[in-house]
Amino acid sequence: MSHSFDDLDPRTALAQIARDFHRREWMAGTAGNLSARHRQDPNSFWITASGLPKGRLDEEDFLRIDLAEDQVVERFRDGAKPSAETAIHRVIYQLFPEVNACLHVHSVDACLAVAHCPADSTELPLPPLEMIKGLDIWEERPVVALPLFPNRLDVPDIAAEIRRRFTATPPPLSALMIHGHGATVWGRSLQEAYNRVEIVEFLMSYLARA
Amino acid sequence: MSHSFDDLDPRTALAQIARDFHRREWMAGTAGNLSARHRQDPNSFWITASGLPKGRLDEEDFLRIDLAEDQVVERFRDGAKPSAETAIHRVIYQLFPEVNACLHVHSVDACLAVAHCPADSTELPLPPLEMIKGLDIWEERPVVALPLFPNRLDVPDIAAEIRRRFTATPPPLSALMIHGHGATVWGRSLQEAYNRVEIVEFLMSYLARA
Amino acid sequence: MSHSFDDLDPRTALAQIARDFHRREWMAGTAGNLSARHRQDPNSFWITASGLPKGRLDEEDFLRIDLAEDQVVERFRDGAKPSAETAIHRVIYQLFPEVNACLHVHSVDACLAVAHCPADSTELPLPPLEMIKGLDIWEERPVVALPLFPNRLDVPDIAAEIRRRFTATPPPLSALMIHGHGATVWGRSLQEAYNRVEIVEFLMSYLARA
Amino acid sequence: MSHSFDDLDPRTALAQIARDFHRREWMAGTAGNLSARHRQDPNSFWITASGLPKGRLDEEDFLRIDLAEDQVVERFRDGAKPSAETAIHRVIYQLFPEVNACLHVHSVDACLAVAHCPADSTELPLPPLEMIKGLDIWEERPVVALPLFPNRLDVPDIAAEIRRRFTATPPPLSALMIHGHGATVWGRSLQEAYNRVEIVEFLMSYLARA
Repeated sequence: MSHSFDDLDPRTALAQIARDFHRREWMAGTAGNLSARHRQDPNSFWITASGLPKGRLDEEDFLRIDLAEDQVVERFRDGAKPSAETAIHRVIYQLFPEVNACLHVHSVDACLAVAHCPADSTELPLPPLEMIKGLDIWEERPVVALPLFPNRLDVPDIAAEIRRRFTATPPPLSALMIHGHGATVWGRSLQEAYNRVEIVEFLMSYLARA
Repeated sequence: MSHSFDDLDPRTALAQIARDFHRREWMAGTAGNLSARHRQDPNSFWITASGLPKGRLDEEDFLRIDLAEDQVVERFRDGAKPSAETAIHRVIYQLFPEVNACLHVHSVDACLAVAHCPADSTELPLPPLEMIKGLDIWEERPVVALPLFPNRLDVPDIAAEIRRRFTATPPPLSALMIHGHGATVWGRSLQEAYNRVEIVEFLMSYLARA
Repeated sequence: MSHSFDDLDPRTALAQIARDFHRREWMAGTAGNLSARHRQDPNSFWITASGLPKGRLDEEDFLRIDLAEDQVVERFRDGAKPSAETAIHRVIYQLFPEVNACLHVHSVDACLAVAHCPADSTELPLPPLEMIKGLDIWEERPVVALPLFPNRLDVPDIAAEIRRRFTATPPPLSALMIHGHGATVWGRSLQEAYNRVEIVEFLMSYLARA
Repeated sequence: MSHSFDDLDPRTALAQIARDFHRREWMAGTAGNLSARHRQDPNSFWITASGLPKGRLDEEDFLRIDLAEDQVVERFRDGAKPSAETAIHRVIYQLFPEVNACLHVHSVDACLAVAHCPADSTELPLPPLEMIKGLDIWEERPVVALPLFPNRLDVPDIAAEIRRRFTATPPPLSALMIHGHGATVWGRSLQEAYNRVEIVEFLMSYLARA
């Protein structure tokens, strides 16, 4: 086993992470999508192909996407299409140049944790647990919230709203929630994004059960 | 690892799926049964033998069943009998020629999700989650329900009721529920049916806990 | 993988079952104990040694116990002692000559399922689920209950009460519950006992959450 | 597989335990820390490096810490720092010479189990379950509680309060809880501490769901 997901080729790492998250029931059916900024060309990123079961990905199930324009730079399988939620990943990489990985998971806990938030809530308050430190908040009784977005059929609409709100007010934590649709989490490295997914899901599990 | 369960021999794939679902506690004891339409002879299908623990199946633990008549076409072990719920699988393959796999699992979540439905309910309303898209419903706030059937000691009675209702009204989704007895899910391919089982169980987990 | 636990040497099978149940959190710490009647000498049985973590057993972590008298017939490690609950297993093998395996697990679900039973209850009613068929009850709406015993510090006291009650009234199912102490399940074969543990734990999970 | 974690080099054992606990969701993100007293020099102990994901540790991810003074005796990687909670482990080894391992895990269950305790509670009462015996309490209806400490941003403050309270009154069990921060458990051997973590988490799961 490698010491960190960042020691691996990004596509190898993302396929391993997908298998891991699938095993934890965070990527049921073909849900969820994972991406990593390209190392040599930071103006592009790898993202999972659309419609594939996440427990069985291999390195060729990723497409390289241009950061500026909505186009595929590299694909390995004829007909492969990028994840339907590519637009959300693009916004995160465009807004935050230090971000190199973005992971969207879709758990029952995350759906339950926001189920009691009114439809127009724009944030999900987090419990004041020690675990919050893993999201770089160092306070004894942290009072923080995750940005919360309504779900829409049209993903570019969600992406546009994320861009608008995050441009006006940078997010307090490196994660966001979409109603009925799970968490999107990012980090400076694959390992950091992976660790933060675990932390966000820990908090979702706590909220869902509290 | 193969890229899709459909890359494998169907019996190999079904044995792997059984092991996977057993690990998730969806096939306790000898519960549940899995089938796939025969590729060369679509008028027959493979189904799990009756009474076996699903975590330890091999390729010889399947029987081939004729689609038209209630008879075994092929068996590998003397005395092996087809699943007690073969009649339900037969109805699904007869009614839906495009269906090539049918998977019945039996989870605590599915039992809890319907526990509060009155005994005479004929459907289980689903929550309006993004995950519903995995069942081919593309709406922003999907209002859909799974067909729900009463459990009976006599399986052919259940099968007959499924045939009657589905002939009158095609099911809105490729799955049905039986009271206290879990979900039956089908798809055009083994991988599609497998993905949909995950989605249905995700929804059952949400309902059981909501 | 073998096709059934009964294809293996009983001690090999019990060590594998212990690892499996430990992974499912049914044998935390050193809790639980597993036994199988000796095949050549049915007046003796193998049982787990006392005080060992169940995720790491090997074939030498079992002792052979005489059925009639409280004595060790065979041991592999100096100082190894039979499980503190050997007396309960002995009663089961003595009362039911057809039983060849007896498995005691200790889950959170089982503790929660009986938590609301009054301290003097002598049975735990089961929900009328299809899963009950796996315990050989073939009714459309089964009304059955598991025998329930109070926990005592002195295990021979528990064993004596089991003998007294089961001699007066044979148990309706091949399992019993002890308050705050989990389920004991038996079967004609190792595989049957294993399958029934899964079924009983399924029912405990349902009751704990219902 | 070794028969006991104590048959292994302590760092190998701790890395395996970390992987195991990570898989159970008890060490999300980089949470938790594990230590073992040095066998040749009992005035020092190995502890996990700070800030690493616990599912991917190797033998070089541990530092050796002096028991008397706050200094690193041995490290394998430049820049590696000892766990932020090293001060708590030091107190346990200083107060209890018979203790050779100390494991801090961080579960959702443990956070939920104390969530309803007032902020100034100094103990968490445990349920009277058989499982309590695994913590060396042999009573028919055990009435015991785990010491409970408030969480603080400054770990040496927590460590000082543990020292103060445990010096005044030895803890009744080999474990303590910190509000919103999980369980710290110790034992005479690695295997004993590991077993007790399982028992404490069993009790936390019961309390969280009861």
